Amino acid sequence: MTTPDPAALDPVVLGQRADLMIRTLASISAEPNRLIRGFLTPEHRAAADLVAKWMREAGLEVSEDALGTVRGHLPGEGRKRLLIGSHIDTVIDAGMFDGPLGVIVGILAAGHFAKAGRKLPFGLDVLAFGDEEGSRFPVTLSSSLAVAGHFDTSRLQAMDADGTTFSEVIGQFGKSVADIPLAAYSRDEAAAYIEVHIEQGPVLEYRGQPLGVVTAIAGQTYVNVEFLGEAGHAGTVPMLLRRDALAGAAETVSLAERLARETKGEVVATVGVLRIPNAAGNVIPGNVALIVDIRSGSDTARHKFVEAFKREVRALAERRHLGVTMTDTRNVSVTPCDPALQDGIAKAIAAVGGEPVSLVSGAGHDGMAMAKLCPIAMMFVRCRGGISHNPAEYASPADMGLAAAALIKFIETTNF
Amino acid sequence: MTTPDPAALDPVVLGQRADLMIRTLASISAEPNRLIRGFLTPEHRAAADLVAKWMREAGLEVSEDALGTVRGHLPGEGRKRLLIGSHIDTVIDAGMFDGPLGVIVGILAAGHFAKAGRKLPFGLDVLAFGDEEGSRFPVTLSSSLAVAGHFDTSRLQAMDADGTTFSEVIGQFGKSVADIPLAAYSRDEAAAYIEVHIEQGPVLEYRGQPLGVVTAIAGQTYVNVEFLGEAGHAGTVPMLLRRDALAGAAETVSLAERLARETKGEVVATVGVLRIPNAAGNVIPGNVALIVDIRSGSDTARHKFVEAFKREVRALAERRHLGVTMTDTRNVSVTPCDPALQDGIAKAIAAVGGEPVSLVSGAGHDGMAMAKLCPIAMMFVRCRGGISHNPAEYASPADMGLAAAALIKFIETTNF
Repeated sequence: MTTPDPAALDPVVLGQRADLMIRTLASISAEPNRLIRGFLTPEHRAAADLVAKWMREAGLEVSEDALGTVRGHLPGEGRKRLLIGSHIDTVIDAGMFDGPLGVIVGILAAGHFAKAGRKLPFGLDVLAFGDEEGSRFPVTLSSSLAVAGHFDTSRLQAMDADGTTFSEVIGQFGKSVADIPLAAYSRDEAAAYIEVHIEQGPVLEYRGQPLGVVTAIAGQTYVNVEFLGEAGHAGTVPMLLRRDALAGAAETVSLAERLARETKGEVVATVGVLRIPNAAGNVIPGNVALIVDIRSGSDTARHKFVEAFKREVRALAERRHLGVTMTDTRNVSVTPCDPALQDGIAKAIAAVGGEPVSLVSGAGHDGMAMAKLCPIAMMFVRCRGGISHNPAEYASPADMGLAAAALIKFIETTNF
Repeated sequence: MTTPDPAALDPVVLGQRADLMIRTLASISAEPNRLIRGFLTPEHRAAADLVAKWMREAGLEVSEDALGTVRGHLPGEGRKRLLIGSHIDTVIDAGMFDGPLGVIVGILAAGHFAKAGRKLPFGLDVLAFGDEEGSRFPVTLSSSLAVAGHFDTSRLQAMDADGTTFSEVIGQFGKSVADIPLAAYSRDEAAAYIEVHIEQGPVLEYRGQPLGVVTAIAGQTYVNVEFLGEAGHAGTVPMLLRRDALAGAAETVSLAERLARETKGEVVATVGVLRIPNAAGNVIPGNVALIVDIRSGSDTARHKFVEAFKREVRALAERRHLGVTMTDTRNVSVTPCDPALQDGIAKAIAAVGGEPVSLVSGAGHDGMAMAKLCPIAMMFVRCRGGISHNPAEYASPADMGLAAAALIKFIETTNF
């Protein structure tokens, strides 16, 4: 057994490497002035090739599946593999860190063990997925679902903005739909999946900590609420004779906020869309539609919230003599993170000097798909101002270096 | 002195006549399937000609001024004249009653006295204005302002949707801008102005009364409110770390409603427009703009309301760590109705069997312009469901007949 290079474990050096790699990958975009890398586009091809090159340089065996997911494999003593992944596709006008950070720290960690020449009791696979953001097709997580063995072929009919089907695009990318099943791991091979990701929220910054342990990826309900009142002249209808749909909607926005605050962090609720058809300054709104996005790390808490929310909306609509319809347009269950893996990540964070903050991931991740295959866990990295999906997105080299070092610690102290 | 025809005072007969005239006038429209009569259009020409014909048939001397306002004059013993008017232009996809009702009951009332052959102590002038709705130019009340001697020539540069100026349109209508000043009454000639109008609100219906006395035409303030918070991911930002602009806007909508209700009818406040730029279901709104329409029959009450409202908005913005800007984009003072005229109208309503309901007009009327010339008053007619500016607008023949009969009573019992 060779002695590992001490510099390779220095978080400062790891962070500098991560930062350079992040910036290099970010130079691959469909547009010169903003970052866009769609699934199975020429930019995806170029990014996958760069990642494959890095993996080879790190000493990993590289392959690529039918959906363009790049894998860097480091053989271990046993058949089991620890999967480490994230995505290299982006939203439109993206930040540089969302996705690439997890792939890059995976390569840095696997490279550390490859360089050390020490064979781990299990194999390491670093995965670079290409369809987490869903910015090309109206479906998402295709790459990780294929790897998890849960790719539903009905999604091959999905079309991009140019009217090209997912199926056709796979052919254009030089791959074959028939090979998609080959992307899947067998269940006895995949021991666990770990994803390192920028937080995309302000909690770690607020707590003054570089790294966090995700307890679960939140479940989500979208409730579309529509109020039907009576349009009227803003000057001629007395307050007490009004059936103002916006007044009902405003009360609903405040209600969602109040109920979510009462859960003391267990549930978040957001109204991001509120529409008044034929709005005019001098017309009492007769019709208002809004969308309430409800998320929680606990399905029980989310269902309880949705039930209480709907009950109070019905009551306020009745009191205001408004018609109301409520429709759930999305219902996604919680993806829990494995407690033993969480514990291992927390210890690894502590080992590099952090105080592990436990938090729920409010955003979706490839881990949701991978959870269909094996136990999963996630490590979050502090995100400046909580800003993500925006060019201003930022994680510091220091924090990224700590994440890579903690991931290395985690791998060292794990067994399957 | 001839005995008046008793049938001419029968409200049922008057109502039937009014209803037939309303429907005949409504057949004059720019479009076959909806009612549109813009200012100084061919439809205005045709409607003015029909009104002039009715006036002549009623025994009135007819003239027309430079802005197409038709006048039917019944000479009296003295020089003073009682002016009775309303408008014959409409909004787009209008109801039949808003405007024409007041012109038509004026013609029926003047016709009653013309037919009776009894000379009143004062002259009667029935006026059919053509620019109350402002649906052609971005200015309004041009016709009545000219008649009141308050026409500001700067408005002649206003353009319609086709890019034709108000000035050019007057020429196309066969009139001359130079003649506009001739439309004005002298102050010693105009004794008072009376306008009968459909209520355009639900108060008379709610009170079960056909007719009402307007105490004032409401003053109005438009406050544009804009909140600046911080956009964020709906799943990743804890409730207590949010600066949600929509949550602030919702509280503002509820605040406007609550403060208006607390005035117990003195002020109405309406948010008809609320916009979320770049709205998305999973994004916490960072920016929201809304317009608050505040009206009252008392300028003092309105100013007090606006002050209290702004104070509370600033407080809630501070509490929520939101930036806020508030801009008044309209400030129109109350037009009070003359107490003696109100009293005369109330007595006339009682004389025809009604219980006169006093109410503020929340909508604007030609009376606002005429108040610059002489004392004004208005009589409101019950409006089914409070619905106006809509093809469903309706006043019953019975109620219109009572309005005409009350107007006749008012004229009989008035002197100047």
